[in-house]
Amino acid sequence: MDFKIRAAEKEDCKDISRMIMELAVYEKMSEQVKISHEELERDGFSQNPFFECLVAEVTDEHKSKEGFKVVGYALYFYTYSTWKGRTVYLEDLYVMPEFRGNGIGKGLLSKVAEVGKKKQCVRLQLSVLNWNTPTQDFYAAKGAQDLTASEGWHFIRFDGQNLDNLANEAPKS
Amino acid sequence: MDFKIRAAEKEDCKDISRMIMELAVYEKMSEQVKISHEELERDGFSQNPFFECLVAEVTDEHKSKEGFKVVGYALYFYTYSTWKGRTVYLEDLYVMPEFRGNGIGKGLLSKVAEVGKKKQCVRLQLSVLNWNTPTQDFYAAKGAQDLTASEGWHFIRFDGQNLDNLANEAPKS
Repeated sequence: MDFKIRAAEKEDCKDISRMIMELAVYEKMSEQVKISHEELERDGFSQNPFFECLVAEVTDEHKSKEGFKVVGYALYFYTYSTWKGRTVYLEDLYVMPEFRGNGIGKGLLSKVAEVGKKKQCVRLQLSVLNWNTPTQDFYAAKGAQDLTASEGWHFIRFDGQNLDNLANEAPKS
Repeated sequence: MDFKIRAAEKEDCKDISRMIMELAVYEKMSEQVKISHEELERDGFSQNPFFECLVAEVTDEHKSKEGFKVVGYALYFYTYSTWKGRTVYLEDLYVMPEFRGNGIGKGLLSKVAEVGKKKQCVRLQLSVLNWNTPTQDFYAAKGAQDLTASEGWHFIRFDGQNLDNLANEAPKS
């Protein structure tokens, strides 16, 4: 199946937003999605964007049952390791189920790695849920390490009232 | 003890670099540190920086045995959740041992939360090693959740030859 991977444009945000929800449903956390396509447009397509995104597009003849041509996306940004330096972080990688098995996911992942290397990133990182063995296997087969298993790193988060409390206690200097 | 928290300047990179190594020694991974203060200067203090940093500075009369006045730092950057939006990610938080117990660590953490809130971030995230219970307790006491424990998120990484292999397989489009 012919497909093209290209940098997302502002006009793709409705498609990206639709697929963000599809991915969250797969991850069994769809009630957590609070983002709108307007926010994606603002945060990814203005000056100093908070993320970059690639989309996979098929030709007219292969469009989905519902008429969609943008059938996959990879959303990423740059982070920093104080031990190793620049890192590209893959937040989401998704291909619509009916388009899987055509190398689109692999193509998106490789393209993110290529973009990262061009920016002198020495790492590509991401997170995956512990029950999601198909995805873990997909990455492991390509050489990824599981750092939670091997080094014991845990994710920690402040949000809501806890984040407000912290911010409100900031020293005035 | 009097201390001031301020945005790091390029001239602070030698102090930051010194403390990055001290923190890595504490985390028992000092052999992993490959970053130089020149790289920190390039990556944090040019256009479109990869990170931002706060430092804690004490007055002359309180300087360390070795003569250091910059005695703590918080290095952070912005990431993005496709479910919730803007996030501030705290990569490193460190206070030199002889200056602990004076509220400097708490001050740095709160200041990062404040900076994040000003940028409309809805989350402050970070990672901590599973054996490092003092640090886990420090964050938990302030309301942080452990997402690896509660939701099962694992960290995954590609680097070195595995990252090169991925990048080299990127579709040409």
